[in-house]
Amino acid sequence: MRTEHVITAKGFCRADIETVLDRAAALEAAETSAIDRHPDAVLALLFFEPSTRTRMSFDTAIKRLGGTSIEMGSVEGSSIAKGESLADTVRVVAGYADAIVLRHPSQGAAKMASEFVDVPVINAGDGAGHHPTQTLLDLYTIRKHVGLDDLTIGIMGDLKYGRTVHSLAIALTQFEATQHFISPESLAIPAGVRYDLEEAGASITDHRTLLDILPELDLLYVTRIQRERFPDESEYRAVAGEYGIDLDTLASAADHLRIMHPLPRVDEIDPAVDETDHAIYFEQAHNGIPVRMALLDQVL
Amino acid sequence: MRTEHVITAKGFCRADIETVLDRAAALEAAETSAIDRHPDAVLALLFFEPSTRTRMSFDTAIKRLGGTSIEMGSVEGSSIAKGESLADTVRVVAGYADAIVLRHPSQGAAKMASEFVDVPVINAGDGAGHHPTQTLLDLYTIRKHVGLDDLTIGIMGDLKYGRTVHSLAIALTQFEATQHFISPESLAIPAGVRYDLEEAGASITDHRTLLDILPELDLLYVTRIQRERFPDESEYRAVAGEYGIDLDTLASAADHLRIMHPLPRVDEIDPAVDETDHAIYFEQAHNGIPVRMALLDQVL
Amino acid sequence: MRTEHVITAKGFCRADIETVLDRAAALEAAETSAIDRHPDAVLALLFFEPSTRTRMSFDTAIKRLGGTSIEMGSVEGSSIAKGESLADTVRVVAGYADAIVLRHPSQGAAKMASEFVDVPVINAGDGAGHHPTQTLLDLYTIRKHVGLDDLTIGIMGDLKYGRTVHSLAIALTQFEATQHFISPESLAIPAGVRYDLEEAGASITDHRTLLDILPELDLLYVTRIQRERFPDESEYRAVAGEYGIDLDTLASAADHLRIMHPLPRVDEIDPAVDETDHAIYFEQAHNGIPVRMALLDQVL
Repeated sequence: MRTEHVITAKGFCRADIETVLDRAAALEAAETSAIDRHPDAVLALLFFEPSTRTRMSFDTAIKRLGGTSIEMGSVEGSSIAKGESLADTVRVVAGYADAIVLRHPSQGAAKMASEFVDVPVINAGDGAGHHPTQTLLDLYTIRKHVGLDDLTIGIMGDLKYGRTVHSLAIALTQFEATQHFISPESLAIPAGVRYDLEEAGASITDHRTLLDILPELDLLYVTRIQRERFPDESEYRAVAGEYGIDLDTLASAADHLRIMHPLPRVDEIDPAVDETDHAIYFEQAHNGIPVRMALLDQVL
Repeated sequence: MRTEHVITAKGFCRADIETVLDRAAALEAAETSAIDRHPDAVLALLFFEPSTRTRMSFDTAIKRLGGTSIEMGSVEGSSIAKGESLADTVRVVAGYADAIVLRHPSQGAAKMASEFVDVPVINAGDGAGHHPTQTLLDLYTIRKHVGLDDLTIGIMGDLKYGRTVHSLAIALTQFEATQHFISPESLAIPAGVRYDLEEAGASITDHRTLLDILPELDLLYVTRIQRERFPDESEYRAVAGEYGIDLDTLASAADHLRIMHPLPRVDEIDPAVDETDHAIYFEQAHNGIPVRMALLDQVL
Repeated sequence: MRTEHVITAKGFCRADIETVLDRAAALEAAETSAIDRHPDAVLALLFFEPSTRTRMSFDTAIKRLGGTSIEMGSVEGSSIAKGESLADTVRVVAGYADAIVLRHPSQGAAKMASEFVDVPVINAGDGAGHHPTQTLLDLYTIRKHVGLDDLTIGIMGDLKYGRTVHSLAIALTQFEATQHFISPESLAIPAGVRYDLEEAGASITDHRTLLDILPELDLLYVTRIQRERFPDESEYRAVAGEYGIDLDTLASAADHLRIMHPLPRVDEIDPAVDETDHAIYFEQAHNGIPVRMALLDQVL
C-alpha cells in the first residue's frame, strides 16, 4: 500500500472530502464506541510549537479509536534543542509510531517530513502553510449544521494572515459557495489566495463592513484579529471593535444564520451570542474528534 | 441522569463519604484488575497550575479503570495564553472527554466550570478553595489504618493557609472526632473555618506545642510550613523546627499513634520516622488511587 | 519474587544479555502485536532531565505491550521543586505504577531509588553513570546487523564523556571483540574505563585518525562531540571536522562496514551517508523498541 499522507487541503477533490466527511458522520452516529478499530495503533504527536486544542483533539481521536499516543513534549530540552534536523527526528519516530501528526512553525515542514518516512504524516499546521484537518472539520460542521450546497458564507476578520480561512475558501470553491470577505483593508485576503480562488471559479466579493451583507448570509465565519498585527493598541482596539459581533450586530441577521469561529476567541464574539441558536462554534470544535478519527481511520 | 460534579468536600454527608470509601475499598480488595470497567472513557486533565502528584494520581486512576487521559499541558503556549476564558476552554474540552479534572489557581473555578458543561467536573484544587479528593483519601486512610470512630486527632503545622486541613477538619465533624490544632499563633486556623467547625458541633482545642497533647493522640496529621509565609529565613527556621517531628519527639507518643502528611514534605518529618510503624504517609499517598478510581467510577 | 531492577549494564553476563536480546528478537519477529501481554501494566516515566528519544522509546515499548504510562512532567512546578527528596518521590510513585523508568542527572540515582521501592526500577541514564538500555539496544543492533562474534569495531568521537561508549566497550568484552578507539587526545577514553577494560581482558588499541584503521573495521560507532567540551569554537570546529565522516572518508571502508550512532547527530555524519548500506543508525534507534519491550516484559 502506498503511504497516505495528509499535507494540504489544496489537493482534496470533492470526492476526497466527502469520503472523509461520510466516514466521520458514520463514526459519530455509531451506537458503539470505536475502540476496537485500532487497538494496536501508536500515534506520534510531534508539536514543534504548542497548539493545545489541535493536540488534544488528535489525542482524543486516536484514543477513541482504541489506539494510543506518544508525545515529543516541548522542544526545549529535546533532541532538537541539541541541533537535530527535522528529517532525523521524524525518521527516528517513524520507527516508534504507526503515524505521525506534525505541527511545525515552518511552511513546508510536513511535506518535507513525509518524504523521509514511510508511515503516514498528517499536517497539523505548518506556519503560514496548511492545516488540512481544520478545513475538514470546518466543512464537516457546515455540511452538518448548514449544508454545503447553495451556501452563502461571510468570512470576517483577519483574512490576510488567517491560514484557516484561506484553506476553507479554496475548499468551498468545490461546492460553488457564494463567498463574502469582510475585513479592514489592511487585513484583506492576499493577492495569491485571491488568484487561486479566481482560478477555481469562486464567486467572491469584498466588504468593509459586515452590515452590508449580513442579512443575506447563511453562515458567518469569524476569525480572531491578532493584537500583534497592529503597531499600536488603539488601532487594534478600533479594528477589533468594528469586526466583532454581539446581539445588536445580529439584529439584521436571518434566523437561520449560523456562526462559526476556529477558536480560541478573545473579544470577537460577545458571550451573549453563545446562548443563541446562531452559535455553533463549540460544536465546530467538537467536530474535530469525528473528523480526525475518520482521517486516522483512513490512513492507519 | 443528572451530571454529577465533585466540587467541594463541604457538601458531603456521612453517607456520601462512606459510599465512596466503600467503593474504594472494594476496588482495592478486588483480585482482578478493573480495566474492563471503563475501556471507553477519556478523562481530561486540565491543570492550570502544576500539581505533579495529584495529576499522576488521577492519571493512574483512570488507567487502572481501563480508560485513558488527555492533558492540556502547561498554560504557556496554550489557548489560555492567547486570552481564552476558562468557560470557553472547558466547553471545548467537554466535547472531547467524558469527564474533566480541573486544577486552577482561582477559588471557585471548578464550580464555575461545572456550570458550563454537561460532563462531570472534578475539582482537583482551586486556589484557597477546595480539594475534595484529598479529603476523601485522607478519610479513607484514617478509616483503613486508624478508624474513623472515637478518633482523637492532632493537626499540626500551617493551619492558616492549609486548604487540606480545613476540608479534613470539617469532614471529621461528621464522625465526631476530637480535634486538636497545633500551630504557631501566626498560622492558627482562620476564624471562618473555626466558625464552620463550631457550627458543625466540632470538639476542637488549640495548642502551641505538640508535647502538651501528643500522648493522647491516635493520629497526628502534619502539614508543611511554607517558607514563603515568613518575612525572613530565620523566623521560618525557628517555626519549622518547632513544628517538625523526629524520633525524640515521638518518645511520649502512644504505640498506636499513626502519622499522616499530604506530601511533599520537606523538613517536617525526619526520615528516621519513616521506618517506624507510626508512619503511614506513603500509604496515604497510595490511597489516592483507589479513592480516585472510586470517584471516577461513580461519575463516569 | 525478588524485584528485578535494571541499574547498570556492568553486571550483565553474556547469558543475561542474550536472554534479553533473544526475547527482543522474538517480540520483533512475532506476527501478532504484543498488546495482550501487559494490559494491566502502568509504567511511570520519571525524567528528572529531558531525554525525548529515550522517554518516547520507553513510552512506545510499554504501549506496544498493551500497557500504559504516567509521566512526571517537567521538574519545574513539581513536588521536587518544592524540595521533595528523590527517595520520597519514588516511594509515592511506587504506589501508583508497576515499574519505574528513571532518568536523573546524578550518578547513582537509580541505584539509590531502587533501594526504597519494591517495584522494578529501570535506569534510563543517571548523569555520568549508566544507561543500560542504550547498551542493550546497541548490542541488539550489532548482533542483528553485523554479528557479535569476531567483531572488529571502531569507536570514534568523544570517548571521554560518552557514557554510552563506556558501557558498550565493557559489554563487548564478553564477546571478545577487537576494539579500536579513535579520538583526539583530549577526548580519549578515561583511565578508569581503560582499567576496567584491561581487567576484563579486552583487546583495545588507540588511534588519533580513523583512516589508520578504517579498512579493517566491521563496524564504526560514531558519537557526538559536544561543543561545550571546548573552550573556543574554532578548536571545536577543527576537532568535529576531523572526527566526522562523509562519503569521501568512507572510500577505504569495507563494503560490509556498518555505521552506528546513538543519535541525535549534529555534523558528525554527513546526510549523504544515510543513503548508503553502511548506515544503520536509524535501525539502531528503532531497535530501542523491541529491546525495551523485552526488558519491560521481563521485569513486569
